[in-house]
Amino acid sequence: MNTCELIIKKRGGGELTRGEIEYLIGGYVDGTIPDYQISALLMAIYYKGLSERETLDLTRAMIASGDTLDLTQISGVKVDKHSTGGVGDKTSLVLCPMLAACGIKIAKMSGRGLGFTGGTIDKLESFPGLTTAIDGERFLRQANEVGMVIAGQTAHLVPADKKLYALRDVTGTVDIMPLIVSSIMSKKLASGADVIVLDVKTGSGAFMKAEADAFELARQMVALGKNASKKCVAVVSDMDEPLGHFVGNALEVREAIAVLQGESGGNLRELCLTLGTQALREAGIAPDDADARRRLEESVASGAALRKFAEFVKAQGGDERAVFDTSLLPQAGVRLELAAPEAGFVSHIEADGVGQVCIALGGGRETKDSPIDLSVGVELPKKVGDRVEKGETLAVIYANDEARARAAGEKLRACYRFSAEAPEKKPFIRGIVR
Amino acid sequence: MNTCELIIKKRGGGELTRGEIEYLIGGYVDGTIPDYQISALLMAIYYKGLSERETLDLTRAMIASGDTLDLTQISGVKVDKHSTGGVGDKTSLVLCPMLAACGIKIAKMSGRGLGFTGGTIDKLESFPGLTTAIDGERFLRQANEVGMVIAGQTAHLVPADKKLYALRDVTGTVDIMPLIVSSIMSKKLASGADVIVLDVKTGSGAFMKAEADAFELARQMVALGKNASKKCVAVVSDMDEPLGHFVGNALEVREAIAVLQGESGGNLRELCLTLGTQALREAGIAPDDADARRRLEESVASGAALRKFAEFVKAQGGDERAVFDTSLLPQAGVRLELAAPEAGFVSHIEADGVGQVCIALGGGRETKDSPIDLSVGVELPKKVGDRVEKGETLAVIYANDEARARAAGEKLRACYRFSAEAPEKKPFIRGIVR
Repeated sequence: MNTCELIIKKRGGGELTRGEIEYLIGGYVDGTIPDYQISALLMAIYYKGLSERETLDLTRAMIASGDTLDLTQISGVKVDKHSTGGVGDKTSLVLCPMLAACGIKIAKMSGRGLGFTGGTIDKLESFPGLTTAIDGERFLRQANEVGMVIAGQTAHLVPADKKLYALRDVTGTVDIMPLIVSSIMSKKLASGADVIVLDVKTGSGAFMKAEADAFELARQMVALGKNASKKCVAVVSDMDEPLGHFVGNALEVREAIAVLQGESGGNLRELCLTLGTQALREAGIAPDDADARRRLEESVASGAALRKFAEFVKAQGGDERAVFDTSLLPQAGVRLELAAPEAGFVSHIEADGVGQVCIALGGGRETKDSPIDLSVGVELPKKVGDRVEKGETLAVIYANDEARARAAGEKLRACYRFSAEAPEKKPFIRGIVR
Repeated sequence: MNTCELIIKKRGGGELTRGEIEYLIGGYVDGTIPDYQISALLMAIYYKGLSERETLDLTRAMIASGDTLDLTQISGVKVDKHSTGGVGDKTSLVLCPMLAACGIKIAKMSGRGLGFTGGTIDKLESFPGLTTAIDGERFLRQANEVGMVIAGQTAHLVPADKKLYALRDVTGTVDIMPLIVSSIMSKKLASGADVIVLDVKTGSGAFMKAEADAFELARQMVALGKNASKKCVAVVSDMDEPLGHFVGNALEVREAIAVLQGESGGNLRELCLTLGTQALREAGIAPDDADARRRLEESVASGAALRKFAEFVKAQGGDERAVFDTSLLPQAGVRLELAAPEAGFVSHIEADGVGQVCIALGGGRETKDSPIDLSVGVELPKKVGDRVEKGETLAVIYANDEARARAAGEKLRACYRFSAEAPEKKPFIRGIVR
């Protein structure tokens, strides 16, 4: 096969065969096809797209580039969840214990945060002693015994995605739907779960700003998952403002625990119930949505989900007392309240901007190897649609340095917009794709 | 500036500024911008194009990557000529002496052949002793004293084009109009002539198969040349069959000499007269086309053009006696006549195929450093529209090996198509763009 001819075929809108896609991905990973040919191909794909069949073949070729997890030694139904990412997104910390308490097996790989979106691994490390460096045997055993295990991405899963993503990142080819689909789904499929639940965000703080794009991504991922013989469902929800009332690693853990304790509700709880409902129904544990939701609510009301979370934290070497006494989590030394500059309704909170504020406080990574301060972050007591009076507390900065706190306060204020009238709000859950 | 952002700008159809283009080309040539970013950009240009202004800025940035020739020490009007290439294209060998005999200064860089298109330098080396390794001082002196000098591309002209072309060749980005325009015109503009005459071919044996594309290329090149303050004109002519009656280095030299002797005519003579007419008029030597054409015809009739050619051959160290006695040129040992397989009219001669036959005989290069046999080639006494009887000589193979000659005969026969009726012929000269 001739790579240049394949580029020209795609350039003209031709459909690449499975063999051609395997040749391209195999050659790229083993170094026989150079970066500069693949980047030209990617740009042609930007304009000409990939068919559903091509996207599936691409995803399979990417999976074949590395190892895959075999979860057959874990009894029961294994559910994996993926979020397209956002600010204040602590969904996994709530959803996974709820599902595990309902009898689902969560055997999950997770990542660290980069840029303004946080990572589940970082958040979990707020528990003193907790490790996510879990080897294969322990991973399977904990999944069977506890029903929930979360490991760092240590296995050699989908190296083609790492290499392709690095190239896309510098060649203007990141925002190409079938490539996003294959990147996400290759990792989920390689991870071996039976059911895949996709948490797709839309809005100014999401990767998919436009709702139509978010639904299209959801549709393509679900179609691909099903074509690959997995149970797959997606929930599209709002990320126009940050999710929940806290942003920052340990602060988000606290908020997640509050939801598991039944103390706190709002959008975070609603999202977890919605995702969980889909998961339980797809897993065949609940016969319908109403029953699934009831089970999830009961897991919280009974304390089972919280206990499951504590059991999980302990199994991974963490201090489970922190689940019941969150003062044991990292605490910031400086607390700075931000007063509302005017009276009115909060009409917008720029999610990306809030994420940047957390990075500036030391709570997020600029590059892959930056150390982070788990204790810092912001509290957002007033969300979009809430009424504030001039001088009332709009937000709270948690920092470890007075000057940084004040600078962050200035930046945070700029993330807010106000209106005289109550803003029109779209529903938080935009839809379910299954 | 950020290269990825510039890729995304062009990807969306944005117009790159002069500064942005200079940054991209400068960075690519000095190695700070990698191949894989440029190939993605080139693919975006395939879809989104470049404006006339962008193409001019690209051409200028490419010229700035290397040296430029200063021909101001050559008195008179300097004319350069470029051909988009084809099979049997010996136009320079006829046109340059004619123009020089009319008082034009020809100070020209030329290339070697690659693939099925021959190069002027290879053809000239049919003269025993002739060299094209001419240094700068000798180049200027010969231009002034003889009026005609042709040197190999030894100067460091437009290195950006070499690097870009090598990348385009392997990334499916060769056939992009503004990149073809900037590649050709950057070298012509860097070569310092006052008048640029462009010989644009169209048809199955040309780079531009479709006539509309050939005219568009001609239009864009002429516009760019004028925008760069040069006198510039293009002639679009047929390359659906090979040009003239001979293909092969020494054989083409003989045919060129026959035209300069006034012995032979046909399309080759017509093309040289047409290109020469445009050159003389643009140079201000002839007041109008009719006068220009008369001067060129007179240069042949008087023997002045042939003498000028001999003078040129001698000045470059070649044996000028071969101009008057072509038996001194390299001669092939085997002559094989190809009989017409049927009676009828020749309706098509596949130019690319004839070129491939010459390569198979050893007369063309597969790679840049292949040695070539200057004596071999083919004679095509019957051209499209000519009537042949069954068994009549259709073509003649000149080779140095009986087996190769026979194999070439088989291939050559496959280049011909016949029809019972005389085929409709388009005019050889398709048009002039000025």
